[in-house]
This record gives sequence, C-alpha cells and structure tokens, in this order.
Amino acid sequence: MSPPRQIFIAIVGTGGVGKCFLDQLHAIAPRFSQSQTAPTYLSLILLARSSKVLHSPDYRSLSLTTWEKDLAASNTPALNPTQIADYLGAAPSKVILVDNTSNQDIADAYPLFLKKGISVVTPNKKAFSSSYALWQAIYGAAGNGSGSGGFVFHESSVGAGLPVISTLKELVETGDEVTKIEGVFSGTMSFLFNSFMPVGGGGGAFSAEVKKAKELGYTEPDPRDDLNGLDVARKLTILARLSGLPVESPTSFPVQSLIPKELESVSSGDEFLEKLPQFDGEMDKLKEEAAKEGKVVRFVGSIDVASKSVKVGLEKFDLSHPIAGLKGSDNIINFYTKRYGSNPLIIQGAGAGGDVTAMGVSGDLIKVLRLLR
Amino acid sequence: MSPPRQIFIAIVGTGGVGKCFLDQLHAIAPRFSQSQTAPTYLSLILLARSSKVLHSPDYRSLSLTTWEKDLAASNTPALNPTQIADYLGAAPSKVILVDNTSNQDIADAYPLFLKKGISVVTPNKKAFSSSYALWQAIYGAAGNGSGSGGFVFHESSVGAGLPVISTLKELVETGDEVTKIEGVFSGTMSFLFNSFMPVGGGGGAFSAEVKKAKELGYTEPDPRDDLNGLDVARKLTILARLSGLPVESPTSFPVQSLIPKELESVSSGDEFLEKLPQFDGEMDKLKEEAAKEGKVVRFVGSIDVASKSVKVGLEKFDLSHPIAGLKGSDNIINFYTKRYGSNPLIIQGAGAGGDVTAMGVSGDLIKVLRLLR
Repeated sequence: MSPPRQIFIAIVGTGGVGKCFLDQLHAIAPRFSQSQTAPTYLSLILLARSSKVLHSPDYRSLSLTTWEKDLAASNTPALNPTQIADYLGAAPSKVILVDNTSNQDIADAYPLFLKKGISVVTPNKKAFSSSYALWQAIYGAAGNGSGSGGFVFHESSVGAGLPVISTLKELVETGDEVTKIEGVFSGTMSFLFNSFMPVGGGGGAFSAEVKKAKELGYTEPDPRDDLNGLDVARKLTILARLSGLPVESPTSFPVQSLIPKELESVSSGDEFLEKLPQFDGEMDKLKEEAAKEGKVVRFVGSIDVASKSVKVGLEKFDLSHPIAGLKGSDNIINFYTKRYGSNPLIIQGAGAGGDVTAMGVSGDLIKVLRLLR
Repeated sequence: MSPPRQIFIAIVGTGGVGKCFLDQLHAIAPRFSQSQTAPTYLSLILLARSSKVLHSPDYRSLSLTTWEKDLAASNTPALNPTQIADYLGAAPSKVILVDNTSNQDIADAYPLFLKKGISVVTPNKKAFSSSYALWQAIYGAAGNGSGSGGFVFHESSVGAGLPVISTLKELVETGDEVTKIEGVFSGTMSFLFNSFMPVGGGGGAFSAEVKKAKELGYTEPDPRDDLNGLDVARKLTILARLSGLPVESPTSFPVQSLIPKELESVSSGDEFLEKLPQFDGEMDKLKEEAAKEGKVVRFVGSIDVASKSVKVGLEKFDLSHPIAGLKGSDNIINFYTKRYGSNPLIIQGAGAGGDVTAMGVSGDLIKVLRLLR
C-alpha cells in the first residue's frame, strides 16, 4: 500500500464542456480517494471563467457541489495565464490544469505551465494546431514529450472522447507505418452532408440543411465558422503532426471553404443564412454529378503521409464506403497503416457534445494521475 | 532529466505472435535507451518456448538479433511457471513478463508473478476468460487492479491490436454507463460469413467457405476449434467482466456451435471437412430466410449489461447495419453507452494476425514502462 497523496486540480472554462467535466470529476474523485492501495485526494484549487476566478491564497479546496454558486459570488477578476501559472507553480502538491476553453492566450502559456511541472489536459484545439513553434514548445517541455515538465494530453482535441489520438500515438510508438488518415472530423459537416445527400436518396436544399443544423444546435452561432473548414483543418493539423509531418499551421495546406465568396463578408450569421439559398444551385450540381457516378458527397479531411499532403474539402464516395454510410452527426476516422493492410483501422461515433468531450478530458486526467509520481 | 534505468523483459512463446513481438521489441528498444530525458534500457533476460528456455543465472542480456539461433542451440529444458517466477522474482531490476502463448498453466501463474512485482503483458485469452476466481486473483494482485503487485495489460486478448479493452476501461472509469456491447469478434467467423452471405448477394455453400477459409490460413488446424464458438465466448467473457458482470466462465452463457451434432466426435479436422457438405442444407435455409427479410446472417457476440445477458451465435442484420457491411476478416465492436446515445462508439479493423496482435502487446509494454517507477 502506497501512502495517500494529494493532487491539485485547476479548471479554466465553465461552459458546456467545463460543466460536464465538473460533473464527471465529482463522480470520479471519490473512487480515487477511496482506493485501498494508493489513495489519491483530488482537490479543486482554482476555477476560472473569462470574467472571474475562484481560488484562495492557501490553496484551500473548492466545493465540487456548490462551485457554480460560489463562482457567481466571487468578486475576484480573472487572472491572466502568467498569474495562473505563478499561483499553480507555487502550490505545495502536484497540479493538473484542465483547460476547457478554446482560448489562444491560455494555449500559448502551455509551455510555461509544463516547465513549472504543471500537467495539462484539454480539448483546446488551438494549442496543438496553431504555429508549429508552439507545438514544439509544448512537446519540448512536456514530460511525455522530449522534456521533463508536466504531462500533456489532449484526446478531445480531435473527435471528442473517441480514442483517436491515443490510437494514432500507439500506432506510431509501436513502429507501425501510418500511410494515410481519412475521415469526417466535424459533427456539423457530418450532419449537414448525411442530411443533404443521404445514401438512400433524398435530402433538402443545402441552405435548408444548414438552417436546420443551426436550429438543432449543431452549428456555431455563425454557421460560417463551421463552413469555412478551419475546425477540420485544425484537427488535421494535429493528426498530421502526430504522424510526423511538421505542418506549419492549419492554413498551410488546401482547405475548401463552403462559404460562397460573395457571402464571406456579410455582416452577420443571420444575413448569411438569408442569402445562402441563392447559391444552392452549385451544391445541387455537385450532388447530381455524384449521383450520376453512384456516389455521395462528403466533407472530409485526409493526410497522405508519404507524399506529405494534407487537404480538407468535398470528396465523392461509393455508397458502400464506410464514410458514405455515416449516421447523424457521427465522426469517422480511418487509419491506413502498413500492419493493417488494405482494410483500415476505423474509429466511429459521436465526435462532439459536452459529455463525450468531457469524457476524453476525464480519461486524460486519469492517465496523468497514473503517471504522476 | 531522470537517471537511466534498467528494465528486464522475459518472453514466453516464440510462435507467430512471439516472433512479430520480438521484431517490434528490437525496433522499439533503441528509442527508449536513447531518450534524452529518461533513458530506459530494455534487456531480454529470458526466452522460452514449450520445450526449452534461454536464460543465464546472472541475468545477462540475450540478443534480439540472434535469439532464434541461440534458442535453437540451447540445451536447457523448459522451466515450469513457478521456476520462471522464482528466477524473475529474484532479478535485480523490475521485470515485465510477455506471455505470447495461449497456455493455461502459465495463465494460472499470473497471480504469482504479479505478487512478486513482475508485470504481465499478454494476448493470452485464457488468463482472463477461465474461472472467475482466476480473474479475481489476477486483478486482486495487480497494481492496476486492487492490489499492489506488478501491472497487467491484455489489449490483444480481444480484437488483437484494436483499442477495444482500453476503450471499454476508459468508458467505465470516466463514469459512462455501458448498456450493450455487440460485434463480430472472430476473424475466422467474419471471413466465413462475409463470404457465405455478402451484402451484394452471392457466396458459396457454407462447407465450401469453411474449406476456403482453412486453405487461406484463416482457421485453426481443425476448423471445429473456430466453429464451436468458444473463442468468441472467451472474448465476450473478458468484455462482460470489464463491464462489471461477474461471468463465471465462457461456458456459463448460451454459445451457439456451428458444428453439426453428428460431426462433433469425428476423429479429425479432415474428416469433418469431408462430411460437412452433408449439412449445407441447414445453413442454406438460414440464408434464404434472412434474404427474404432483406437481411444477412452474421456470427456475433453480445452483452446486454442491464439484463446481465451474454450470448454468442447467429443473428440477422439489416444490410445497412455496420455489422452487415464488414469486409474480409475484420472485427467490429459496437459500444452502446449512455453518453454515446443511439449511435454506438465503433471500433473496426483486423482482429487477428501476428503483427497486429503483437502491436497490442507492444503497446501494453510501453504502457507498463511508463507506469513502472
């Protein structure tokens, strides 16, 4: 039996994913504290949202049941990433920072946190898909990279809780040769094209499907933030880098935007949705072309490792292809490797949503708890 | 930078998986020894097959390049599991035992190894699918169970290198509620039924497909060892136990055998294959029935967690179901959970073969290397 140990948790971001994560942490924590052989006490010592923060100078434990009320009652204005790093770096126990934001500023500070021995778990795509220099700084500092700092895990930065990043890492680490990765990486794009051109035929006008997706909560407040392809490009950047390609940024390879040129600069998402029907003809043409070939159109990302080519955009698929048969807003990721031969290793399922995204973060937290000594 | 450390590796079994694993270990070891921040020297100190063993009293390192010749030249007769445990238990560094056999005797000794602080990584299904008492003894002793001994990992005991066990463990550990697991868990059965009744129509007589599968190396030497369903039942036993069901053994729930009663006791696999065509009528009838309903027949295993029901056998599936569309000898595993809702989390790909099975073992070895302190 090992002596009991104390691990501090700091959480930034209390939106959809943040709330679900706090629920999961509340459920997981007792299991670790009650372990017969190696009890671990998880204490929440900092909780921050964009405007304010909850923490105490003496690292007192915050409540996992009344946090929402307590944070609302806090008068302490937000700390910047450097202030947070100073506070956590001086803590008397090991610290795991859970970043449930999609904020670039905090992402930029990951190397600082890691060097201070603070571990980071996060679904924040921006940390791993912005400049290649930031990627190198993060993995150069991390204890599970080439550094000696805290650990960093970001399973939910691609495909939410689906085991995408852990699988790719294991393929690479065990010496397999990944030749190609191809898939549908956006729940929004999945829903849009599964509705616009289902395998069995049918589907409405493209603009109508975008409107429906927005009403169902599948898009960002301004749907152009999904249709520009950048979200998929960020995920591809992460997987390409993990495959060994030094991709400079998510804009350094071809990304097809589904926003008509004429609507790029209209002032609001609502105006965009209003004018989008004028461009349905183009999408209908694509759909007809594909149908003539016995195929469907899908919005996919692909990485060809040998030719170092990464791209994001519309492709046609045979009706029997696993990518064509996707349902709802599911993601699908096909790993083609030397060992797996002609049939890829496939991971499929919900790739968005608070609970499954938080699950990937919780899983990463548990990994770090096992690795911390 | 951590000080360099030495980890000893012992390997039992040098058959198809064993050979592939030795190749992978040879490729992986230099990366660990050359780590800038935490160099780990992996030394092979014992190599055993059923008839003989290679090891030295002073734990000298064996060669990863000439092991085959060296083992062939060894005159030391095989050690029994207790002798191996004594030898490894007295080693001056931490030891990881890699069991690449499907031997019950060595599986029975896992609790002994683990209690001595020896970690175990293995594709050996028998260790985790025999009596529930053995399961409890293994996880009761292991450092990643409720004990304080060595670590145990067995990803390749289900679906070879596919991330099936790690995914199920993470679903459970992060607090998701697994409601149902359903899939095709045998490469042989997958190949047989994808050929016997492909989605597009066609396929030969069942006995002819069994013969073809045997010729292509997809079956055991005696195909009845696949057709009895026990291999699938063992995998289901493992997944059910990981889901929290205390399944007593792989024969404690309904398992449909595809061996006609009359052929159960014929003396050889060859005689079985010769007489199997007499029973093609039954399988043809099943096929016709399914076709009339617009479905296909597949050999699947399923676990209904709420009703604690586990079963293995033939089921009919709609043509659009992911299980129907499987290709070649691929496995597919569908996890239905509370968080994932109506669309399951799906893992699919090759679930048999030396290289992908060894990959799961190598991945587990790397996990243990990270956990060992």
